[in-house]
Amino acid sequence: MHSAVSVIMAKRDGGELSDEQIDWVVDGFTRGEVADEQMSALAMAILVRGMNRREIARWTGAMIESGQRMSFADLPRPTVDKHSTGGVGDKITLPLAPLVAACGAAVPQLSGRGLGHTGGTLDKLESIPGWRADVPVPDMRRILADPAIGAVICAAGADLAPADKRLYALRDVTGTVESIPLIASSIMSKKIAEGTAALVLDVKVGAGAFMKTLDAARELATAMVELGTDAGLRTVALLTAMDTPLGRTAGNALEVAETVEVLSGAGPADVVELTLALAREMLAQAGIGDVDPADALADGRAMDHWKAMVRAQGGDPDAALPVAAHTEIVTAARSGTLTRLDAMGVGLAAWRLGAGRARQGDPVQFGAGVEMHAKPGEPVVAGQPLLTLHTDTPEAFPAALDALRDAYAIDAAAVPGSAVPDRGAPVSIVLDRIAP
Amino acid sequence: MHSAVSVIMAKRDGGELSDEQIDWVVDGFTRGEVADEQMSALAMAILVRGMNRREIARWTGAMIESGQRMSFADLPRPTVDKHSTGGVGDKITLPLAPLVAACGAAVPQLSGRGLGHTGGTLDKLESIPGWRADVPVPDMRRILADPAIGAVICAAGADLAPADKRLYALRDVTGTVESIPLIASSIMSKKIAEGTAALVLDVKVGAGAFMKTLDAARELATAMVELGTDAGLRTVALLTAMDTPLGRTAGNALEVAETVEVLSGAGPADVVELTLALAREMLAQAGIGDVDPADALADGRAMDHWKAMVRAQGGDPDAALPVAAHTEIVTAARSGTLTRLDAMGVGLAAWRLGAGRARQGDPVQFGAGVEMHAKPGEPVVAGQPLLTLHTDTPEAFPAALDALRDAYAIDAAAVPGSAVPDRGAPVSIVLDRIAP
Repeated sequence: MHSAVSVIMAKRDGGELSDEQIDWVVDGFTRGEVADEQMSALAMAILVRGMNRREIARWTGAMIESGQRMSFADLPRPTVDKHSTGGVGDKITLPLAPLVAACGAAVPQLSGRGLGHTGGTLDKLESIPGWRADVPVPDMRRILADPAIGAVICAAGADLAPADKRLYALRDVTGTVESIPLIASSIMSKKIAEGTAALVLDVKVGAGAFMKTLDAARELATAMVELGTDAGLRTVALLTAMDTPLGRTAGNALEVAETVEVLSGAGPADVVELTLALAREMLAQAGIGDVDPADALADGRAMDHWKAMVRAQGGDPDAALPVAAHTEIVTAARSGTLTRLDAMGVGLAAWRLGAGRARQGDPVQFGAGVEMHAKPGEPVVAGQPLLTLHTDTPEAFPAALDALRDAYAIDAAAVPGSAVPDRGAPVSIVLDRIAP
Repeated sequence: MHSAVSVIMAKRDGGELSDEQIDWVVDGFTRGEVADEQMSALAMAILVRGMNRREIARWTGAMIESGQRMSFADLPRPTVDKHSTGGVGDKITLPLAPLVAACGAAVPQLSGRGLGHTGGTLDKLESIPGWRADVPVPDMRRILADPAIGAVICAAGADLAPADKRLYALRDVTGTVESIPLIASSIMSKKIAEGTAALVLDVKVGAGAFMKTLDAARELATAMVELGTDAGLRTVALLTAMDTPLGRTAGNALEVAETVEVLSGAGPADVVELTLALAREMLAQAGIGDVDPADALADGRAMDHWKAMVRAQGGDPDAALPVAAHTEIVTAARSGTLTRLDAMGVGLAAWRLGAGRARQGDPVQFGAGVEMHAKPGEPVVAGQPLLTLHTDTPEAFPAALDALRDAYAIDAAAVPGSAVPDRGAPVSIVLDRIAP
């Protein structure tokens, strides 16, 4: 016989929760018998006291059991998915999913909308005229089975780990977001319920990411890899740098345009590098070892799959993308080398300009965002454009400029090229790799 | 600029809350802008991380500010109140308030109803025909100023620290009761808001009390004495034993009857001892040093004040008290010495019999409870009555008997008198005293 108070007290006092306690409390929460205030107190106790591997696995399983579990095991192609913990300018899912599909895997990519300074994959794709995020499960199966498409990026249904959805909304307002067991469980419950056979995690590290240090990122990555492995999902994680934005754009339509550049065989080197690194991991996890994704990018197959994927969800891949009504240019105050361009500042500026939302359900501006004309390590000349700000609401410019004020630095003495993330020789975006 | 999340996170991460943060969050909670789930997470963070003396004082002040503050400073007699943290058979308030009033102080005793295994003072008094717990403030003043009465035991108004009332209800369901800062603040916010000039605390220690150890009780007593002192209230605490019930009855009308015995100059020695010890502390705090309360008990003045106090609240002190419809007697299985009679077991049995309530607002049975025919240290003979159980609902007997099964022990070899709390030489009910 359990009670919410006894479960809360057990964790509060540093104990381990039994499988039965975890099942009981998550089920009670799902059915509304464990109240929001009780779950909030439990989340705080978990944040402070932690959970061990068994507890996290059971908690994740209980979250999955709160809803429906999908399965794509009957598809003729191996399924593999990617999840990123979120970064500024992180449009990687957009070129990655069709690229991996072009190499023979099926990519069922359930994604979310953005909140705060990191954009949401669905928000970006919705800037494509006609594109729809909601895909019924039978249509998902058809798209994934089609060798000419093979990838679908769509919204998770309301019945995928619904208890986690409610818990996340509570954690957001109760100061209980920063718990590695709860973060890991939240991400993995949705990915396991989604029914993919393999998963590659992109855990961002740095000032612009949720995880500020390599140690914290390693802890989260390890917890997620363990959770996936324990659930029978082939899982691996890359730890990747998120101090400066990925690529040269942050904003919805701006990032789609950059995606098309990458799929055309061009695009910023850091976006290409990370896309290929993640594609190689995904193909390895899917058991497709004899294909080089760089070829599929170079020869246009990835672009073909992109266009087919966009069309399959009602979008017109050749239509003009939305453009913001107003722009403002930030110029370099002096000549030298751009030594710093902070992801957090750029992300906040893009958010202020209308590319992101402050509250769930708010609209986003498709054309809004920040274009970066120089990245760290590149030489700049006094008076040249550094950043172009785009928005439909020009009253947002002062706040965006304010967010950017201390977000970059130009050093007259620094040697160009020393920290170039998107040109020249390969750079170390991938910092570490966590495998089971 | 504060937010609930920032306050929660500050305490969660082990920080001190500023005065402004405390005022802001309690005021927001009072006005409904800080949600129940946020206050629950904060309560858990406070339970785990603690609060220092300044934080507890400010928190208590903010709770007081959430409602009205009373004042009896204009009364012609010094005011003094007592608060007990709750024990089984703890009817001490009933003889104590009229006794102290008989000695010249004014006793504004705002009390509560019971929940769980310890009874509530108001529930006990309500067993007196006609007695009413609700006394308007002007009537309180009149009663307290009347030298023939001078004591009032009544329900706290809804506007006395209302934020604490709501917080307590939340703590009760979120596993956040056991926080010494929150317990101390909850008790003291009501006592300070009540407007008494002096206060004596009876902090119970032992298996039947909320505080199981002397150390924990000392910590709570010290926190409360500090809070009272910091708020300008003369405050002292006695730590008293609660391993076995006080006196020979646990139950509403049963305890009123025992009270009348004590006021008649008889009654169980432990009840008399604790009543006198607390009365002496109260009189000292009130600055009335030249009166021995034992005299007022012996010569009937305390009884006169009792009757006047009961009448002032509509009760008939001479009316017959309610009697339960059914009784069951537990007899001694063998001869020897009763070595143990656990307060918790007796309290739970009385509660099961109908003397207490499981949920706020439930009715109680006035006649229900447990009569104890022997107390620890007393000799018993095989077959003699040990306990009489009283209830209107005889289907409750099995559960009550179950609660009592392991609650007492008879040792054939033990020497009688070694642990007698209510007969013979003075015994050590008072374990310690905490003064500023």
